[in-house]
Amino acid sequence: MSEPDKSEDIPDESAGKGIPNGGNAAKSKEDFDLAAIYVSDAQYNRNIYFDTSPQSVRLYLRYNHWIPKVLLFFFIVVDLSLAVFEEPAVFPVSTLYTMLVELLCLLVFTLRLVHYAKVIPRDKFWKDPKNICIIVILVLTLVDMIIYEALVATDCYAVRWSRVLRPLLLVNVTEGRQLRRAFRSIRNALPQIFYVFLLFMFSLLIFSLMALKLLGKRGLKTIDGAPYFTNYLEIVFDLYVLVTTANSPDVMMPAYNASFVFAIFFILYILINTYIFMSVFLAVVYNNYKKYLKEEVRQLVRTKRHKMVRAFAVLQEQRAEGGEPVVNQANWNQIVKLVQPNISNAHRELLWSVSDDNNQGFIGKVAFVQLADLLNIEVITLKSRPHPLQSACPAFYLSAPSRLLCRLIQHRAFVIVYDLIILVNAVFIGLDEANPLIANSEWVFLALYLLEILLKLYVFEPRAFFSRHSFWNWFDTVIVISALIATIVNSAVTSSVNYTSRQILDIVFILRVLRLIRVVDSIKRFRAIINTLIRIGPAILTFGQLIIVVYYIFAMVGMELFKGKVKFYEEDSSDPAKAYCGNPLLKGTAFAQLNYCKNNFNNVVSSYILLVELTVVNQWHVLSSGFATVTHMSAKLFFILFHIMVVIVIINIFVAFVLEAFFVEYSVDKSDLQTSLERKIEELELAVAQEKLEDNLVNAMETIDNDQGTGQSANNKPGLMFKIASKRYRTVDALLQRMFEADLDPEDFAENDDEANGSFANPAFSSV
Amino acid sequence: MSEPDKSEDIPDESAGKGIPNGGNAAKSKEDFDLAAIYVSDAQYNRNIYFDTSPQSVRLYLRYNHWIPKVLLFFFIVVDLSLAVFEEPAVFPVSTLYTMLVELLCLLVFTLRLVHYAKVIPRDKFWKDPKNICIIVILVLTLVDMIIYEALVATDCYAVRWSRVLRPLLLVNVTEGRQLRRAFRSIRNALPQIFYVFLLFMFSLLIFSLMALKLLGKRGLKTIDGAPYFTNYLEIVFDLYVLVTTANSPDVMMPAYNASFVFAIFFILYILINTYIFMSVFLAVVYNNYKKYLKEEVRQLVRTKRHKMVRAFAVLQEQRAEGGEPVVNQANWNQIVKLVQPNISNAHRELLWSVSDDNNQGFIGKVAFVQLADLLNIEVITLKSRPHPLQSACPAFYLSAPSRLLCRLIQHRAFVIVYDLIILVNAVFIGLDEANPLIANSEWVFLALYLLEILLKLYVFEPRAFFSRHSFWNWFDTVIVISALIATIVNSAVTSSVNYTSRQILDIVFILRVLRLIRVVDSIKRFRAIINTLIRIGPAILTFGQLIIVVYYIFAMVGMELFKGKVKFYEEDSSDPAKAYCGNPLLKGTAFAQLNYCKNNFNNVVSSYILLVELTVVNQWHVLSSGFATVTHMSAKLFFILFHIMVVIVIINIFVAFVLEAFFVEYSVDKSDLQTSLERKIEELELAVAQEKLEDNLVNAMETIDNDQGTGQSANNKPGLMFKIASKRYRTVDALLQRMFEADLDPEDFAENDDEANGSFANPAFSSV
Repeated sequence: MSEPDKSEDIPDESAGKGIPNGGNAAKSKEDFDLAAIYVSDAQYNRNIYFDTSPQSVRLYLRYNHWIPKVLLFFFIVVDLSLAVFEEPAVFPVSTLYTMLVELLCLLVFTLRLVHYAKVIPRDKFWKDPKNICIIVILVLTLVDMIIYEALVATDCYAVRWSRVLRPLLLVNVTEGRQLRRAFRSIRNALPQIFYVFLLFMFSLLIFSLMALKLLGKRGLKTIDGAPYFTNYLEIVFDLYVLVTTANSPDVMMPAYNASFVFAIFFILYILINTYIFMSVFLAVVYNNYKKYLKEEVRQLVRTKRHKMVRAFAVLQEQRAEGGEPVVNQANWNQIVKLVQPNISNAHRELLWSVSDDNNQGFIGKVAFVQLADLLNIEVITLKSRPHPLQSACPAFYLSAPSRLLCRLIQHRAFVIVYDLIILVNAVFIGLDEANPLIANSEWVFLALYLLEILLKLYVFEPRAFFSRHSFWNWFDTVIVISALIATIVNSAVTSSVNYTSRQILDIVFILRVLRLIRVVDSIKRFRAIINTLIRIGPAILTFGQLIIVVYYIFAMVGMELFKGKVKFYEEDSSDPAKAYCGNPLLKGTAFAQLNYCKNNFNNVVSSYILLVELTVVNQWHVLSSGFATVTHMSAKLFFILFHIMVVIVIINIFVAFVLEAFFVEYSVDKSDLQTSLERKIEELELAVAQEKLEDNLVNAMETIDNDQGTGQSANNKPGLMFKIASKRYRTVDALLQRMFEADLDPEDFAENDDEANGSFANPAFSSV
Repeated sequence: MSEPDKSEDIPDESAGKGIPNGGNAAKSKEDFDLAAIYVSDAQYNRNIYFDTSPQSVRLYLRYNHWIPKVLLFFFIVVDLSLAVFEEPAVFPVSTLYTMLVELLCLLVFTLRLVHYAKVIPRDKFWKDPKNICIIVILVLTLVDMIIYEALVATDCYAVRWSRVLRPLLLVNVTEGRQLRRAFRSIRNALPQIFYVFLLFMFSLLIFSLMALKLLGKRGLKTIDGAPYFTNYLEIVFDLYVLVTTANSPDVMMPAYNASFVFAIFFILYILINTYIFMSVFLAVVYNNYKKYLKEEVRQLVRTKRHKMVRAFAVLQEQRAEGGEPVVNQANWNQIVKLVQPNISNAHRELLWSVSDDNNQGFIGKVAFVQLADLLNIEVITLKSRPHPLQSACPAFYLSAPSRLLCRLIQHRAFVIVYDLIILVNAVFIGLDEANPLIANSEWVFLALYLLEILLKLYVFEPRAFFSRHSFWNWFDTVIVISALIATIVNSAVTSSVNYTSRQILDIVFILRVLRLIRVVDSIKRFRAIINTLIRIGPAILTFGQLIIVVYYIFAMVGMELFKGKVKFYEEDSSDPAKAYCGNPLLKGTAFAQLNYCKNNFNNVVSSYILLVELTVVNQWHVLSSGFATVTHMSAKLFFILFHIMVVIVIINIFVAFVLEAFFVEYSVDKSDLQTSLERKIEELELAVAQEKLEDNLVNAMETIDNDQGTGQSANNKPGLMFKIASKRYRTVDALLQRMFEADLDPEDFAENDDEANGSFANPAFSSV
């Protein structure tokens, strides 16, 4: 599906190729563009072997611009969403329109690919399997569209089989790096999983044979009166289902009712196949995942290093005859501005002072190379501004009652009081809102929450209160104001037309309940767990994409196989076919009895929901047997394949990832680079809340708010402060890198770097 | 329940206390006994602070003898098995007999405790919580028995509540070290689990509140026609069950049928609570498990070191004035013989030559200390004997046709032919044995298998073929001969009384199918996985004990709460109560409909099977609701508690253990000590199958067989050969030690050892 990104790695020999001047001549705009691209590629771990000619560099800059990227993803989403409108459709639309939209999408993808082809050398382009893959997908899609139209025109049976290929675009575009990595880790784990799976299958077959011999001749009956364990293939399926535990203990009951000795057989089976083998699957997946990911991250770090060295080569100048080449501050500033245009001057100066620790006005290769990592450290710049009320009306704002109020609001008791209010509110929400007293109490709670926000705004500087990282402040305000609007709209609608809109009420309810979540933030232990979860969130999204890709393929195939076989009738329908989902074959099956009619492949939305149910595994056998009943026994293979792919492989990789990420959060400390940046901030006396540095981000941000509040009385603090959002990762790569940092060979960082020494990672600071 | 074994750690100050002579005087028998105890304690990681007076040492020797240990475990098993005979009983027996047996058990436990009290100093005895625990259990049991008898005599309601305490004996006896460790790792993980659990409960409550608000007022009905999501507590229970996935997708269907938008709510719930939170539970448990176990193993290694140093102090003598104290070979030999009486002379000499690498006739402290670990390395001594046929009739046995036959049997094709025969046999087993042709084919297969064993015995020396480690040879022979006997008995019975015994036939079937397992051994990849599983087997047994202890407590409580509430009627019963398990309250419930009547707490066996079903989790809610229906809603708490204890905590610790053990198998190489022993064997030219040393044990053993077979033609090989069963662990401790060896500080090994140097772990060998 996708080859490792290693193929894009830049070979060392060409390092000096596109670099026009290594002397002290003034650098041209092209030089800066080139160096900026190298730095930016290193920062974001992009791995594209672009041409270094000025024209290609300009094209490459445009290629990396956010607008074409967003457009590309937009059209991929449009392309994937076409499934909603195509037969079998949620919203049926003429084939003409969907075809036109699809053609437009194909055009966009082609343009993007042509752009890419112009950026990188021709031979590299054709060697990259990703590009071949995209071209094949585009051509096949076009061919499929033509065949489909031709077949439809001649009234033949036609299948849009190329729809299965659509999600592969998401994997093969340049930006799908994380997704490709996830697929690679699956592919790498497959051989090992395969052998364990074979052994597991052998065990399954042996146990089935034994079950057939022991139980088949006893004339036992299942609860439906069917013969029990007489058909070998059915036993194999039943015991496979037992591994997922979905039919426990039902599958055992007839034998157990006959004699408790047979229970031993099933217990042994569950112990070996469910507990031991499933743990071994997790162990194998986890082990492979760790092994290969470590190798990839090592590669990543090495490539990053290469790029920074190349950027240095473009910008370097000879300070003294025979001395080491250096980069001066002016060039460095320009590069940083080019790479990160919205960086504040203060932040840039801080980074420079970390790099140029001896205050020489220039830096060597070692210090320059760390720029990419420095840029990835999120530094929050805080301006300590006086409260607007203080400026507007200092006499009032600084009066004794006002200051007492401020102190009260900042007191711990204020938080506790509001936590209690939330708890009371939770009880009121749980009570029946038909009671007018309780319905009206909602206004009281809304008023209390609004008051809280206003009081906090009275104490804290509004821009600091609503700073980018104050998650809970934003959360509170948005929820409370939305709830206020929704409640007002609701009561207006109710009183005017005397009809309660279900939708508005739903929104009101959801907002009310969401408000309660705030309590979590007040309890330190909870906050720590939540923050860990939030931090690994972006990486979990990669798995979300992976699931969407795999689901899409299974949904497309499933829809072709099973569409219209099972029908759903609305609750108020009186059609007798409702009892057996519109398919007489389902009469008397567990599928129909459990009223699973809506679990079907009749459109892409219900297919996705069905696939989620299959992932959760329970009643998996009822669903797959249902679809096998309406088509053919072999349809079960579709469901078994899905189970193996998604539950055994992908879910295990997901668990492996969560485990590993959690362990990192528990054990690894900040990187050396962050420490040195922190020390610099501290040295410059620009740090805030030192004693809470070890705390988590959200907490630290609140501390800052508090500091600023009290800072107004102690005005000797500097007007500008920095804070490292140390435990937040801008990119998934950074999280991965940190996951394996402890295991990485230090030489990997020092490679191609003759002057690497102990002071690199952790420069010794002289006083500034 | 049990305090860490650390409390038994021997303080350093008393190191020289019981050591009478450090000079060159001849060692008394007492000295050797004392030193042997130290070495043996170090070897088996026993951690008992015994008195060093000769009398106590003799008592301690007796305490460690295998007979009292086996007796103790026998009586614990008897004590636990009493549950089978006590009300509610599988085999009812008069209370008088069970009481008498229990009194006997109590007496045995008391005697063992008194013996222990005589071995260790009085103050140590009373400081150890284990002993206090046993005394409390014994006293409480006695009190309970008296109260019970008194109540029964006065016709009052009586409960034997002390039965819950019985399994705690297993935890608190001196030999329950592994079990105590497992309990400790659970206890250590609990605080962390607790906070995650609270957060999980908070999430559950919030989601339930939202479900109540969103779905409660819509007038939806479940499939039974009951109101859907209208009662908050029921919603909480339903959503808790959804975390276990047991009621997916049924719990979602009414809402999903109303609108597919509600499916999003449930998918979100499952994602957060089932996938994320359950992974976090595993991560927390795994992390804690690793952390504390590492600390314990470090402690273990340190204590072992202490003991060996103490043994050295007893045996040491001054070789030269002012020189280091040493132990001479005679004393060393005597100690090894005392510690391991059945060690072969050759093996002992090998160990000595590893310790005394310079062939000086004495060893220093460093070399002596490694004795405990050396004894733990399993060395297989092989004597290369000529085949008995060769001795009896060399002319025939060494003739050309005979040697050709030998070569044929040792050929790879021989294995493949027999694998094919097994496969054909599998097909025949699967076919209907009513067909006389197929029934008779069984004789052919039996003959073929017997022939295989005889042929192998013709080639390989019988004692080597049936050596202790030739697992598959033993397996084959036992299975084939049992199958032969069972088949003969079966056909004799069938032909004589014309009646086929079901029991004998079952055994025949089981043996036939088991024979097929042999195929696994022919495939290298499978063998590797199987061997890993076999290797971690003993450690898994500790978890088996843990499960038995926890199950026992829950079974006892469950029997008191639920006995007789649900009745099972035999298949042929025509009692109308059969349809509702003899309890009218169950009419129409899923419990009765699914015919779960035999899942009850009416005796200890069915309780255990029910608890297994609850551990597997599926239909957990049907079972718990069933028992709640016949008693009270709060009975669900019993089942929720069981789920939290067993599924969330113990199963996760089990998975964590399997994961860690698997990683060790994948990554860690042999320890340094084993390597040095192997090098010694190689040097002495006593090694076998060097090229296969890296291979697994079973494979290596077969190689040895082969080598011996061919060794007869090349008679220049030495008559005695060694092989290290390197990857087998004699004790769970050894596996644990190896699990964390890589992480252990080398200083931990060198502690209290002034002359520790690099050559200790890996001595440089001079030629012998």
